Amino acid sequence: MGRKVAIIGVGMCEFGELWDKSLIDIALEAGMYAIFDSGVSGSEIDGITIGNMSAGRFTGQEHLGAMAADQGGLGNIPSYSVEAACASGGAAVRQAYMAIKSGEHDVMLVLGCEKMSDVNQTEAMNTISVASDWEWEGMFGATFPALYAFMARRHMLEYGTTEEHLAKVTVKNHANAAKNPWAQFQKAVPLEVVMSSGLIADPIRVLHSSPVTDGAAGLVMCNAELAKKFTDTPVYIEASEQCSDTLALHDRASLTRMDAVIHSTRSALKEASLGINDIDVLELHDSFTIGEIILTEDVGIVEKGDGGKALDEGITELGGKFPVNPSGGLKARGHPVGATGVAQIVELALQLRGDADKRQVDGAEKGLAVNIGGTGATSIVHILGR
Amino acid sequence: MGRKVAIIGVGMCEFGELWDKSLIDIALEAGMYAIFDSGVSGSEIDGITIGNMSAGRFTGQEHLGAMAADQGGLGNIPSYSVEAACASGGAAVRQAYMAIKSGEHDVMLVLGCEKMSDVNQTEAMNTISVASDWEWEGMFGATFPALYAFMARRHMLEYGTTEEHLAKVTVKNHANAAKNPWAQFQKAVPLEVVMSSGLIADPIRVLHSSPVTDGAAGLVMCNAELAKKFTDTPVYIEASEQCSDTLALHDRASLTRMDAVIHSTRSALKEASLGINDIDVLELHDSFTIGEIILTEDVGIVEKGDGGKALDEGITELGGKFPVNPSGGLKARGHPVGATGVAQIVELALQLRGDADKRQVDGAEKGLAVNIGGTGATSIVHILGR
Repeated sequence: MGRKVAIIGVGMCEFGELWDKSLIDIALEAGMYAIFDSGVSGSEIDGITIGNMSAGRFTGQEHLGAMAADQGGLGNIPSYSVEAACASGGAAVRQAYMAIKSGEHDVMLVLGCEKMSDVNQTEAMNTISVASDWEWEGMFGATFPALYAFMARRHMLEYGTTEEHLAKVTVKNHANAAKNPWAQFQKAVPLEVVMSSGLIADPIRVLHSSPVTDGAAGLVMCNAELAKKFTDTPVYIEASEQCSDTLALHDRASLTRMDAVIHSTRSALKEASLGINDIDVLELHDSFTIGEIILTEDVGIVEKGDGGKALDEGITELGGKFPVNPSGGLKARGHPVGATGVAQIVELALQLRGDADKRQVDGAEKGLAVNIGGTGATSIVHILGR
Repeated sequence: MGRKVAIIGVGMCEFGELWDKSLIDIALEAGMYAIFDSGVSGSEIDGITIGNMSAGRFTGQEHLGAMAADQGGLGNIPSYSVEAACASGGAAVRQAYMAIKSGEHDVMLVLGCEKMSDVNQTEAMNTISVASDWEWEGMFGATFPALYAFMARRHMLEYGTTEEHLAKVTVKNHANAAKNPWAQFQKAVPLEVVMSSGLIADPIRVLHSSPVTDGAAGLVMCNAELAKKFTDTPVYIEASEQCSDTLALHDRASLTRMDAVIHSTRSALKEASLGINDIDVLELHDSFTIGEIILTEDVGIVEKGDGGKALDEGITELGGKFPVNPSGGLKARGHPVGATGVAQIVELALQLRGDADKRQVDGAEKGLAVNIGGTGATSIVHILGR
């Protein structure tokens, strides 16, 4: 029921440590590229949603909605931010999807942005940790590397996953990012370098972890009936689903699966009338490489426990049966937390349009993105089709 | 177009300095009252939106969406926060409105919450200031009392508004709050006490300013077709409109009007096919008393410049032609920033149901709320009808 929604423009800034730009600079850079790409004029945009986790702590500026409308010269249109931790970007996409479907909006700009390098590393870590259950996890030193380390150790114990598997995700995603001009780390990294990188929280090493990143991504979305007026290559949102789970990892029945991902993926596939075998390309939330392994299982590419084996077999490589994170993923494209969920959709839209250049998945028609908040307390799944 | 949306349950916690409760405690207290009031069971709620401005800075916990679903025992439903500075609550109501209208959700819980007293007063002031244009206003000491002082001085110069007018808003709103068991200040205050209270930013005094408040408010909203299944007294959202303006006050053409309020009110009245004379009761954002004076003009109760005179004539008192802030408003009910926009809707719903007890506006059928972010950079207007 309701109207269909199309993506008609995409934009990014190059992710990295962007010392010479402010948060609003990069948000508007990504947004303006998306607007140019879409062919709409600024005056046709009637609303803005922004995925952002913690601009108040990272940069000392909230109220980004009004700021973006104002400094982007987009007039007096409705504009606001959405927060769901590292899934804030996906949440902003979903809000715009519902806003357009409701008939309240026709053409919306969706931005995802975060500037994380303006504070020191300790403050960056603390700011991210408030996406966990701070009173029961973060405050006691269970930062995200530690929480994902629990998940990794347990996965190793139950399914024989190895440190080499954790490292292979990094090798794959860096190889992909080397082909992505917007990625933070546009270079391949050898397995032995990953496996000997510094240990943060055993078994998780520096090169199993996504970096601290400044970055922004943008989309122009519209009522599907209007899409062909602006572009010959619209991409459609065929499903948008979101689920929650316990905020604290220790409250879950299992450390080796994310129930919110399982449920939201299942609902999304049902909504789009697709099976997982119909999906040609995936962007999965690899804030830590064990996360990608667990998600390949939870979305159903492989059976539970076979996420490591899938890497040995190359199933998730570019050219494999289910290419995962052709963009380089959070690991190598970078993980500006509020931007990530939007950047995933940008990558899938490019793939479905055939505009992904050297990292193009041939003939991709359906794409699926999973954007996670915390250790899986929020999961947002989008399925795109052309 | 799209489906109609009803409010079927309301809840609040008593606003104040709530040292013995956490942010999530008060959010769930308000939410549970709203659920009880609505007659739905928790399992019928299929989504949560939360208005919150800055839990990350005020309390060190983000990802409130997943936390509320988890600790509220509401299961794995979609849940996220919305931020638009002091209009975050209104934005959360509007998101839920669109989500239900889109057909993606049927019954939603809307929470607004903020816990501001866990940090010291300086940090509270700084945290609120990031809703202004921090780089051009807050950082140079132009905190909100200072910005509203500019507006007040200019209003005095242009229209002859007096310090006594600024004080009369306080007297009226405290008198109303004395009849509201959820208000932070449930007592009347005499004019001479207001007029001799400490000067913060000339001409703005302590008692012209809303307080630092801990508080939460909740609503259960649903597809209007389902409303009568749960309650005999549904209240309908007849219009939901939002506008932006420049973030910085100095970029505006005028200091004495808020264009975003003028535009969003006009659009909302048009959407509801009403004129301002059809409105029986209003909740207007009085973070400073000059704000209420400006808003009475901008929504069209009186001509521009006559906001002071309206107070002399008692037009906005309980029993007057256009009762404004029967709840006590931000000034006396309190202003937990993310909660305020939801609390305004709670008050209007109670008024339209005839459940407002000693502060009841007789026979109220239509209510209008204006929730402001910053100095008017965001304006969100809702019109409710029974």
